[in-house]
This record gives sequence, C-alpha cells and structure tokens, in this order.
Amino acid sequence: MPQLRKDPIIGRWVIISIERSKRPRDYNISSIRKSDEGFCPFCAGNESSTPPEVLAYREPNSSPNGPGWRLRVVPNKFPALKIEGTLDREGEGIYDLMNGVGAHEVIIESPNHDKAMADLSPEEMENVLNAYRERMHDLKRDIRFRYILVFKNHGAVAGASLEHSHSQLIALPIVPRNVAEEIEGTRNYYQLKERCIFCDMIRQETREGSRIVLENENFLVICPFAPRFPFETWILPKTHKPNFETLPKEDLTSLSRILSRTLKKLAKGLNNPPYNFILHTNPINNDKDSSFYHWHFEIMPTLTRVAGFEWGTGFYINHTAPENAAEHLRNIEE
Amino acid sequence: MPQLRKDPIIGRWVIISIERSKRPRDYNISSIRKSDEGFCPFCAGNESSTPPEVLAYREPNSSPNGPGWRLRVVPNKFPALKIEGTLDREGEGIYDLMNGVGAHEVIIESPNHDKAMADLSPEEMENVLNAYRERMHDLKRDIRFRYILVFKNHGAVAGASLEHSHSQLIALPIVPRNVAEEIEGTRNYYQLKERCIFCDMIRQETREGSRIVLENENFLVICPFAPRFPFETWILPKTHKPNFETLPKEDLTSLSRILSRTLKKLAKGLNNPPYNFILHTNPINNDKDSSFYHWHFEIMPTLTRVAGFEWGTGFYINHTAPENAAEHLRNIEE
Repeated sequence: MPQLRKDPIIGRWVIISIERSKRPRDYNISSIRKSDEGFCPFCAGNESSTPPEVLAYREPNSSPNGPGWRLRVVPNKFPALKIEGTLDREGEGIYDLMNGVGAHEVIIESPNHDKAMADLSPEEMENVLNAYRERMHDLKRDIRFRYILVFKNHGAVAGASLEHSHSQLIALPIVPRNVAEEIEGTRNYYQLKERCIFCDMIRQETREGSRIVLENENFLVICPFAPRFPFETWILPKTHKPNFETLPKEDLTSLSRILSRTLKKLAKGLNNPPYNFILHTNPINNDKDSSFYHWHFEIMPTLTRVAGFEWGTGFYINHTAPENAAEHLRNIEE
Repeated sequence: MPQLRKDPIIGRWVIISIERSKRPRDYNISSIRKSDEGFCPFCAGNESSTPPEVLAYREPNSSPNGPGWRLRVVPNKFPALKIEGTLDREGEGIYDLMNGVGAHEVIIESPNHDKAMADLSPEEMENVLNAYRERMHDLKRDIRFRYILVFKNHGAVAGASLEHSHSQLIALPIVPRNVAEEIEGTRNYYQLKERCIFCDMIRQETREGSRIVLENENFLVICPFAPRFPFETWILPKTHKPNFETLPKEDLTSLSRILSRTLKKLAKGLNNPPYNFILHTNPINNDKDSSFYHWHFEIMPTLTRVAGFEWGTGFYINHTAPENAAEHLRNIEE
C-alpha cells in the first residue's frame, strides 16, 4: 500500500510509493522514454492492454473495452494511489501518515495516436472537458476524497510517459498544498476587501490589456502578472464560480473553444513545446470558501530547466516578461 | 533593471529579468549546455574573464584577480538581480512590485576544473563553508537585504551552466517563500509545544535510527520522513542555532567533514548524480524567530524528471522510501 506522509514542518503531504520501490539503478534521468515503436496501449484495438474502462464515449453499437470509442477513461495501470482500503490515519511521534488511498485515472483523449490535444476538433475537446466533469461528479461521492486533481503532461520533458495524448485525474484524501495556499490567499483577500481576488484580477487585466492573450464571452486567457515560468498562461472564467464540475453545458462549449485556441497558439508560437496544465478547482464539499475561490486552468510550457533550486526555495527567475509573452501569443494566428 | 513581482493570490515573489529578455527561440530545453571545450572562466589563469573578486583565499604573495588562489568569490557575470539602486516598492492595482535589487555571487570552490565538490579535501571544503559565512556576514550589513540564499547546482540536469564546481549566493530584498513557510511551521509548533520542531526531529530520528545516514559529534545526516525526492538528504546541526553564519570555527570543521562524507556517499551510491543543495538559514535580523528556527542543509539528487505537475500542485510522488534510501547510503563506503 502506498503511504501518504506529511512533512511536520510545513505540512506538505507526499506519496511514498513503496510497492513500486525503486533502487538507485532504476533511476535514469538522462534517457527520455520513447514510445514503444509499433505498440501503444492507448490506441484503438489495444483496449485489452489497459484496465477496464470506467467511462467511454462510444459509437452506438460498440461494446465496452472494444474499439468504436471516441474517448476512454481507464484506471492508471501503475497508480500512485490505490482505490481500495481505508485511510487508517496514524501518528508516529511528530510525524503523520495514512494509507495512500485514492483514484488515479487516465483520460485517453482520442483513439488517434498522432493527434495532440491542440489538434482535437471542437467536439473532441468538449468531450475531454465533459469527461473530466463526469468523473469528478462520480468520484466526489466517495467520502474518503477531499480533492480531485486534473492535469495533463504533454511531451516527455514535461513528464508524459506515453506519447498518445492523455490527461490524468487523481482523487486524493487530502487537499494538495498549492490548492490550500490559493484558498488561504483568496480568503485573506476576501476578508480584507469582500471581493474575489480572481474577479478583481479579471477586471484589472481587462482594463490594462497588456497581458491578455485571448478572450471570448465567458473566458479570459492571460499571462499572469508574476509568472513562475516563461509563457505561463491562465484561462479564467469571467463569471465567479468556485467549482469546475458545476459548469453548464454552454460554458463547456465555450471553454473547449478557447482552450483549443490557446493550445494552438502555444504549439505554433513556441514550436510545439512540452507543457503541463493543471485544473485548479475548489476542494470537494468546500462550500464555506465558495464566495472567494474561483476555478481556472494554469498552463505551463516547459521551456527552461527548472531544478531543485526552484523547488527548494519556491523562488523563480523568469526571463520573459508576461507582457512580452502575451503580445507574442496574441499575434500568433491559430 | 530586473523586477521583483508578487503573485497577489499566494504572495510568491518572482524575478522578472526583463533586461536579459528571452524570445521563444532562445529557449532550448533539450540541449544541455556543454562546457566550452578548452576554455573555462573559472579556471586558474582566466581570472580576467570574471568580474573582479570580492573575496579570495590566496597564496601569501599572489595578487588579487591573478592566479595563486585556492578559492574565489566573484559577482555573477549575468546576475539575476542588480546590486545598485533602491527598491522603489510600488503597487499597480492589485499587484505589487519592486526593483530587482540584490547581490548574485559565485563561489569558485577550487582552481582545479575537474574537482567536484565531493572531491575537495577537508581543508578545501572548510574554505567553501567559510567563504559562505564571510560573504553572509558582509552582505547582512546592507539594510536593503532580508535573506541570503546559498545554494549549489551540480550537473547540467540540476541547472549548472558551467561544469567547474561552484556554489552561488543571492542576497534578496525579500524572504523566499519556502523559508517563510518553514519559519511559520516552526513557529506554530513552538507555540503548541514550546519546543523547536527540528530539535524534536533530531531526538526522534536518533531514537529510531532507520533514517540516519551519518552522524558525528555535532551533526546528524538523515533522509527525512516525508521527502519530495528520492534520496533527499538533510544535514542538521545537533545544537539549536537559527543562523548558519554564527557557526563557530570548530563546528565549521566538523560540518565540512560530514558534508564531504555525505556528498561522497551520494556520488558513489547513486553513480555521481546531478544534485542541488540549499542552505536553509534564518532571515537577516530575524531575532524574534530564533528560539524555533534551526538552520540546516537540504541536498536533493536529481534522479527523476519532475515537471510542472509537481511545481503546479506542490504534490510529490516518491518511489523510494527514505528508510530504504538511508539504508543504501549508510552502507556505501565513502
């Protein structure tokens, strides 16, 4: 069973995955794993290579775990956390730990091996966002879980271990540190001003304009004022809403269009960079913070080699001002 | 002038280095910069390739900025922050910024190009630690600075841009985020228990033994209970002291020995891995937190490809339990 352990000083939880324990020789940072030539477990026809699907959008007459799907969600074959079991929280002197209970799922975005997320049609992109939403609604009902983390690694340098485009979802019995910090920050601001800081940010960015990449009726895409990474890009809903999964259908359509345009601009403007995106949303059943938390996407192209220094200090040096990044991306034709 | 900008939500400061502004084509993640064959600005004889030294340990009759040195400290030729100027703190709507004023220095640990830090003699290692201390004492007197960050990147993958072994020092007008969090964590613990959490940790680790790598009279080397990275290793002084730079001479000797042994174990046990180390010490003139902050070193070998996901969530998955890592390192003969 993996363990969740808490750093006693700053309260950060980490997963210690002792079942897949690695010895020193198992680590090889310099070799980027290429896709196995000729075989991909995520391609149509290879459904039996993944655990059975938990959700799929399929042709009317196709059978589960066979071909004929447009999108599949399957449990991760090598999950960081295990779905069965109880948390068994315990202390060990000054330390806290619990069983690594959670869900770890893979959203296979298309049966086509060569289609990156930026290449998906508007309908396919909407399917992906809809799959996130459906899985979130389902997993929210499990009382052991506190947070559902949706993210995507594109490219080996950004941590993708398989080439075929996919997103991941991890349901966690804890709220990850950065989410907790964001909520605390938005709460402090609200206590001072009685306004949501993200709503204030949207107003100021719209007024200033220099950091805007794209905009439509419902969403604003910006390079944030104090970005950790060059060309870091956020997608913010213009209407205050704490939870992604309660987004109505029409907003999902609008979001899929603007996410698609943003990814195309990044791919074209930065020569198809590796990237990560992370959905920031309110924790499960966290109604008390809903007046000031505001869900959004953060997209981080992997253009620089960020190492232990940045992780160790939380201190970032960025050589591209967000105003220049936004201007560059604004001028790229999708 | 570089700018220091503050994220309004979580309060993280970043350096936006607009003078060395990079355009998309300037980023190239996949090419690791090799050392220029045949020329190294840090080698003996090439002193004129660096800015003039601010500190050097030299042979009695040698001249500044010429050969005959055992260790040199020079300003970084491409500093992240500028030493001249005032902070000019200002607001821009909801955002805060100030001039990127600071010092950015390089500690060239040896005139010998091929000597890694793990290969330094005990005397050379002590010189390095002593140089950290001397520079910290000097820079502390500048009232613009709040924190002095000492760190080392070893190996290109860990962010070293030059092969010749060196450490870096950045004096900052702000306290970096992770230091501020650590201080807050130790303060909360102290308020609850009236004890330093690091002192408690040392007691518990000594009693349990399973995470101990090395120990001498004054220092304990452990793999911490909830490590972000495989084989992450901390060096803790057994005696409570908030500030590194007030370390007496005899402790410096003892520290240089145990740091040397730790680096040798990592090099031998993990096949000379890239690594980062960071000196965690109390901010400048922060006397109010001195009962509960406890300086230490954190060493993080770069064995895994950690990408935006971890940066974005603050959530880490580690496939080597610290008990296994410590056992492996304990059994390596230096």
